[in-house]
Amino acid sequence: MRMVDVIDHKRNGSALSKEEIKFFVDGVTDGSIPDYQTSALLMAIYFNGMQDDEQAELAMQMLKSGDQLDLSDIPGIKVDKHSTGGVGDKTSLPLAPMIAALGIPIPMISGRGLGHTGGTLDKLEAIPGFNVELTEAQFKQQVKDIHLAIVGATGNIAPADKKIYALRDVTDTVDSIPLIAGSIMSKKIASGTDALVLDVKTGSGAFMKSEEQARDLAKALVSIGKSVGMDCMAVISDMNQPLGNMIGNALEIKETIDILKGEGPEDITDLVLTLGSQMVVLAKKADTLEEARQMLEAGVKSGKALEAFRQMVIAQGGDGRVVDDPTIMPQAKFKIELPAKASGVVGEMTADEMGIASMLLGGGRQTKDDQLDYAVGLELHKKVGDAVAEGESLLTIYADREDVEDIKQLLYDNIKIEASAKPLTLIHEIIK
Amino acid sequence: MRMVDVIDHKRNGSALSKEEIKFFVDGVTDGSIPDYQTSALLMAIYFNGMQDDEQAELAMQMLKSGDQLDLSDIPGIKVDKHSTGGVGDKTSLPLAPMIAALGIPIPMISGRGLGHTGGTLDKLEAIPGFNVELTEAQFKQQVKDIHLAIVGATGNIAPADKKIYALRDVTDTVDSIPLIAGSIMSKKIASGTDALVLDVKTGSGAFMKSEEQARDLAKALVSIGKSVGMDCMAVISDMNQPLGNMIGNALEIKETIDILKGEGPEDITDLVLTLGSQMVVLAKKADTLEEARQMLEAGVKSGKALEAFRQMVIAQGGDGRVVDDPTIMPQAKFKIELPAKASGVVGEMTADEMGIASMLLGGGRQTKDDQLDYAVGLELHKKVGDAVAEGESLLTIYADREDVEDIKQLLYDNIKIEASAKPLTLIHEIIK
Repeated sequence: MRMVDVIDHKRNGSALSKEEIKFFVDGVTDGSIPDYQTSALLMAIYFNGMQDDEQAELAMQMLKSGDQLDLSDIPGIKVDKHSTGGVGDKTSLPLAPMIAALGIPIPMISGRGLGHTGGTLDKLEAIPGFNVELTEAQFKQQVKDIHLAIVGATGNIAPADKKIYALRDVTDTVDSIPLIAGSIMSKKIASGTDALVLDVKTGSGAFMKSEEQARDLAKALVSIGKSVGMDCMAVISDMNQPLGNMIGNALEIKETIDILKGEGPEDITDLVLTLGSQMVVLAKKADTLEEARQMLEAGVKSGKALEAFRQMVIAQGGDGRVVDDPTIMPQAKFKIELPAKASGVVGEMTADEMGIASMLLGGGRQTKDDQLDYAVGLELHKKVGDAVAEGESLLTIYADREDVEDIKQLLYDNIKIEASAKPLTLIHEIIK
Repeated sequence: MRMVDVIDHKRNGSALSKEEIKFFVDGVTDGSIPDYQTSALLMAIYFNGMQDDEQAELAMQMLKSGDQLDLSDIPGIKVDKHSTGGVGDKTSLPLAPMIAALGIPIPMISGRGLGHTGGTLDKLEAIPGFNVELTEAQFKQQVKDIHLAIVGATGNIAPADKKIYALRDVTDTVDSIPLIAGSIMSKKIASGTDALVLDVKTGSGAFMKSEEQARDLAKALVSIGKSVGMDCMAVISDMNQPLGNMIGNALEIKETIDILKGEGPEDITDLVLTLGSQMVVLAKKADTLEEARQMLEAGVKSGKALEAFRQMVIAQGGDGRVVDDPTIMPQAKFKIELPAKASGVVGEMTADEMGIASMLLGGGRQTKDDQLDYAVGLELHKKVGDAVAEGESLLTIYADREDVEDIKQLLYDNIKIEASAKPLTLIHEIIK
C-alpha cells in the first residue's frame, strides 16, 4: 500500500477502507509515513469528511496505537463525562462526587486548560496538596474505595493522536469533525469507561460556533462510542456566556462547593443535574431521568455529595478543610468592581473574551509552560437577561495587581447593556 | 506572518495576497517552511483553486526563487513553444527548424521524458554525437548564429518549483490547475523568451482528460504569460491517439525528417503548421495566420527548413548525415507486424497504452535512471477512422528482442476494430 494512494482516495471523495486507515495510523505511530503526507491527508479529510464507519475506525486505530486502561476489576458500570470545553465550565467537579455519592464508579481522566482558562486538573490543584498524578494502581484502588478519582492521563495513551494533533495545530486542520471526534473518542475509549455522557458546547465561546456544527460533532462522537459498544449520549449545551458565575481556578472550586451544598447558580446546577441524570440512567441505577435527578438532588440535600468531594480531596492528598473554608486556597490581593455604565438588561457577555480576561489576570496559560495564578478570576453578578442599573456592579475582578484598566476595557467591550434581552437557553438538544 | 494563517486563508476560500505568496515561496526556497505545512497548503489550493492574479504571482515568485536567462542581446523577437506532452508528440523537432529557417530566433529549453516515452532531448540523443548540454554562452551564441538551439535547462531555474513539484508528486496534489500552470510558466518565463505558443493536449493520452480541464489549464497558462508581458496563446489539440505514425526515439527523428521534407503524416504536419503559424505571427514576421502558414510551407518546399535542422544537429555535435540517412541512428534487431484480427475501421487506439508499449520495449523510462533503447518503438500503419482488412498490418513493432507477445497483447487490447468510426478532430480550440 502506498500513502499517496490513500491520500488520493480521500481527496477524490472516497471512503477509506479499514486497511487504509490502519496503514495510515500505524505509519504515523512508527514514523514511516512522513509528516508532509499526513498533513496532505488531514487537509483532504477536512474538505471531504469521513463516513461514520471511517471515523469510528480512525478512532479505533488511534486507540490501538497506545495503551488501554483495563478497569474490569472495578465492580459496577463505570461512567464518565467529557466536555468539549468552555469558559466557567467546572461541571465535572460537582458532577463526579454527586455520581460517586450514589455508589456509581466514576474513574475520570481529565486535562489541563490549553485555551484561555484552566482545565479541571488546574482547578483541583488550587486546593493545597491536591495530587492529580496517581499511578494506574492508585487510581483504580481509589475508585474501588470511594468510587471516584480525577487524574491526568497516565501511560502512553493514543500516541498517534498526539502526533496527529500536533500536526493539525500547525496545518490548519483542527476544526474537522471526524478528526476532532477521533481524537476525543480514542482517548475516552482508552480510559476504559463503560458509559459516557458528552457535553458538546455551542455558541460564541465554544469551538463549535453554530448549533449545526455542534450537532454534527455530537452525532460523530456518539456514533464512534456506540460502534465500540460504549453506552453513549450527548447533550448540546450553551456557551454564549460563561457557565455559572465564577471564572478562575480557586473561584471555580469555591463555586463547586456551593453547588454541592445546593447553593450554586441556577444554570450550572441545571446542567450538572441534566448530565448527571443521564449518567445515572446509563449506570442503570435509575430507570428514568426524573428518578435519577431526584436521587442526585437527594444526595446534595443529605450532604453525601459534598462528603464524596471531601473524601476525594483527602484521598488525593489535598486539604479537606477546603470544603468548609475555601479561603485556605490562594486568595486574590485585590477585588475590583466593574460598575455598569448604563441602565438596562445584559444582552451579551462574550464567553471567549471573559475567559481571556481571566487568562490575562494570570488564571490561564498563554503558552504551555506558563505558571497559573490560582487566586485570580472573575465573579459575575449579572448574566444575560439580567436587569442592571447604572453604577451597579456587573462583576468583581479578582486580581493580584492593582491596575486592571486593560481588563476593565476588555470586559466593557464584551458586555453589552441593551434595552431588553431574553435569557439564553442552556440545554439545546439531546443526541442519542 | 505565520504559515498556518496563510493555509487558513486558502482553506477558507480566500485569495492569498502577494505578500502571503512571497512569504510561502521564499520559505519553501530557504527551507524555513516545513514540508508538512507546504503540503497542507498545496492540498487547500487543490480544493479551493486560485484566482488569475494569485496564480500569476505564484509563478512569478517561483521564477524569482532562481536564475533567469537574459536573452536580450539576441536580436529579434524570441519565440518558444511548450507542449503539455503526449505520445508520439515530436512537434518541437520539425517546428523549431521551420521557424528558424524564417530567421526567427528560437531558443528552446526542453525536457526529458518522465511519463511513458522519451522527451525531446532523449529523441535528439538518438542522433550519434548530439549534445544537449550547452553552456549558457554556447546556447546564446548558437541562437545568434543559426537562430536555433534545443538544450536542457542549465543553472538554478525555479528551485522553489523543484521542491514543490517533488512534494506534489507524493502528496497527490499534482493535478491542480494553478499548481501545474505555475510550474510550467515559472520555468518558461525564466527561459527569457518573448513570445510563447502553448500546445495543451486533451484526451485519453493527455494529463488533462477532458476538454474542459484542458481549456482551464490553457487559460491559466495564457493569463500568467500575459501578466508578465509575454506574448502568449494556446492551442488545445487532441491526444486520444498517438500523434503522427512513429513512437520511439530514433523513429521520431526519422519522422521529423520526413515532415521537414514535406513527406510527413497529415495530422502532425497540420499541428506543426498550426502552432508554427501562430509563432510566426507572434514574432511579427507575418500579419495573418494564412501568410505565416504559406511562409512555413515555402521553407519546407525550398529545403531551408531541413537545412536548418541539419545545421542544428552539426552545431550541437551531432552527425549531420542523419538527414540523408536516418539508418545511422540505432536500428532495431526485429521488425514484427501486428495483423488485424478482423476487418473494419479503427475505432480507438489508446494513446497512453501505445506509449506504455514503447516504454516496455525500452524506448521510455520506468524509473529516472533507466537507460533508453533508442532503436525501439512502434510505426503505426492505421489510425482512428482508417479502414483495415483482417490480416492487414496495423503497425510494426521495432524491438531488440524476438518475443514480443506481451507487447502484442497490450496493443491488441488497446486497438479497437469497429464497424465504423469517425476520424478524430485534431485542433479543438484556440485560446488567446
